Amino acid sequence: MIPAGDLGKRIGIIGGGQLGKMMLQEAKKMGIYVTILDPVPYCPAHSLADDHIVADFHDEGGLRQLAEKSDVITYEFEHIGVEILQRLEQEGHAIYPTVKSLEIIQNKYLQKQALLNARLPVPEFQPLQEECDLWKLGDTLGYPFLLKSCTGGYDGKGNALVRGPQDLESAYRSLGAGKMPLMAEAFVAFDKEISVLACRGISGEIAVYPVGENFHQDNILIETRVPAALPAAVTQKVLELAQLVMEVFEGVGMFCVEMFVTENGSILINEVAPRPHNSGHYSIEGCVTSQFEQHIRAILGLPLGDTTLIRPTVMRNLLGEEGYAGKISVAGVYEALALPGVKLHIYGKRETKPKRKMGHITVTAAAMEEAVRIIEAAAEQIKIQSGEEDVQ
Amino acid sequence: MIPAGDLGKRIGIIGGGQLGKMMLQEAKKMGIYVTILDPVPYCPAHSLADDHIVADFHDEGGLRQLAEKSDVITYEFEHIGVEILQRLEQEGHAIYPTVKSLEIIQNKYLQKQALLNARLPVPEFQPLQEECDLWKLGDTLGYPFLLKSCTGGYDGKGNALVRGPQDLESAYRSLGAGKMPLMAEAFVAFDKEISVLACRGISGEIAVYPVGENFHQDNILIETRVPAALPAAVTQKVLELAQLVMEVFEGVGMFCVEMFVTENGSILINEVAPRPHNSGHYSIEGCVTSQFEQHIRAILGLPLGDTTLIRPTVMRNLLGEEGYAGKISVAGVYEALALPGVKLHIYGKRETKPKRKMGHITVTAAAMEEAVRIIEAAAEQIKIQSGEEDVQ
Repeated sequence: MIPAGDLGKRIGIIGGGQLGKMMLQEAKKMGIYVTILDPVPYCPAHSLADDHIVADFHDEGGLRQLAEKSDVITYEFEHIGVEILQRLEQEGHAIYPTVKSLEIIQNKYLQKQALLNARLPVPEFQPLQEECDLWKLGDTLGYPFLLKSCTGGYDGKGNALVRGPQDLESAYRSLGAGKMPLMAEAFVAFDKEISVLACRGISGEIAVYPVGENFHQDNILIETRVPAALPAAVTQKVLELAQLVMEVFEGVGMFCVEMFVTENGSILINEVAPRPHNSGHYSIEGCVTSQFEQHIRAILGLPLGDTTLIRPTVMRNLLGEEGYAGKISVAGVYEALALPGVKLHIYGKRETKPKRKMGHITVTAAAMEEAVRIIEAAAEQIKIQSGEEDVQ
Repeated sequence: MIPAGDLGKRIGIIGGGQLGKMMLQEAKKMGIYVTILDPVPYCPAHSLADDHIVADFHDEGGLRQLAEKSDVITYEFEHIGVEILQRLEQEGHAIYPTVKSLEIIQNKYLQKQALLNARLPVPEFQPLQEECDLWKLGDTLGYPFLLKSCTGGYDGKGNALVRGPQDLESAYRSLGAGKMPLMAEAFVAFDKEISVLACRGISGEIAVYPVGENFHQDNILIETRVPAALPAAVTQKVLELAQLVMEVFEGVGMFCVEMFVTENGSILINEVAPRPHNSGHYSIEGCVTSQFEQHIRAILGLPLGDTTLIRPTVMRNLLGEEGYAGKISVAGVYEALALPGVKLHIYGKRETKPKRKMGHITVTAAAMEEAVRIIEAAAEQIKIQSGEEDVQ
């Protein structure tokens, strides 16, 4: 049902995974009509969408159909071919974040260069032009450094640590041996990994969220705590930086700025994502306006919402357990939900496999220590397994 | 997608209106499979449900199909014929709240009698056996009193105020002239109308929410403020009463207990609803666990959640504007969402008409005065109209 008036703009989302699903939950709250495009018939967003185009993300016919059924298009991940989107934008379809900002951000080298051009603090980096330049990287960046694929990486995929010259060859081969453009980046011995959600409206207004502290395991985000435990002066500086980053990319919609804080309190921008982000899921229960509602507001040209954190909040990812693959089975729900204030999100992915992001839990409490204590107890209980088979 | 394990129970909801939709929003958050039964193809819950049986609420074939596709059945309104549900329950289908509690509660006379039997405070009432008894009611209850249809009423429908003997005939005729069973009830000159949400789990545990204060216009709920402005001793007594009511009906799931508070601080129970309630919508943003999540937890046998009110909260209904009927058009969204902390819910009903409940707004704030100020400003802006026609 497409309402008339202020809520009459139809949204099209490229991708029906958990981010698309959570965007949909907010859009449907306001009665907005949403079509998704995803090749998986029963993807997480499927049952919530008004319409679902089952097509590949690179299928021009499918994307054109989505454009025809939508007044504004958005996406839940940045690794999309920009050519078709560029054509659609030129033909007059609204796409947010804009294709221009997507194009820069999806290439880690161009992204870092844009940040550097704006005189924002980033780790030292350089492109790799030719294989023979590999050996010079250690001289300029020092060891260890990171070799990175410029496009397509996520959750640590597309990165290789080079501890010394002996790692160069294998790192290079593991990243496609030159088939994809590569870059190198100085390794930052950081004290904390933090992230800041920020949103820019069509009219240029910017709303910045509080600072979250992230904890990773095997390069996968495990937990986010908000507010981050940082000195007030560092927090202030981080929030200012996030605001400046939003001005660099002139993006429309939610962005996430990941940063490193070193022991001496200096701040370096690690990566920018042009979309709602895993480290921002806390905002659903923690903030007045969640990152998903904010994104919907931004791309529809509605005023941005209040980003106030209501109570200290912890979010923890639920990854597929080691040793299980196949149809999802969730255990420990009774025990976890018996703890006060545990909010359970299960994305609705049919198949689990080790380390796959299958859901998350959030706890808000009067004090951070209490929230952490509860979420740790909950995370010990709840297990994402498979009922059918065991890959061990 | 039906997950295995603790979240593997499929839910069936009779009714796909706004209450069904908001139950679904919580169920889908946890990845639970939900089928709805509603005669309207594009009802508010339609796009969120995994499956939708388009059938009348009294269609035994449709209800049987719902039972076969669900492990537990619930409903979003209490005016359902109980005979088919009784048969389904006898055949082993789980229905919550139980058909027994539904049967008592859906009949206002039986409901009041059950409360009276438990020695709980209710306004004086009596059944109307024969038309000729009409004239005696004023002698026992005094004027004014209320003539009420025992079943089927909502939003003031099914009630008639009898100010004196001259109103008896017209009140009697307006309620079907004896075609439906009627009762009479003393008119309570109350100071405040309040309501308390409460939930009972399958194992008998009870969770009670804070007290909300309700404001009506033309017998339709307009606004709920939580916490209610009541002396601490009265609040305490109200919460105890709500707990006792839950024990009377032995219901499973969310209930709403509406009460009157008189000027001298005495409390009378007005009505009990065996479901999430309009006056409980504030809990979506206001409480750790919303009434809809709580209902889903209860009927699945999961532990009940924390009912703590996080911040003072006001909820205001968005009714169809006078003078407009036809396809919904929402105006003033830009202006309303520019105010801090305004959360907009539009149910997704295709057609508006004067006074129809089309959505609601909620505001949480650090202080009640601030929340009230913001919601009043928002309510002045946002208008539910129709784009197509004007009934004036």
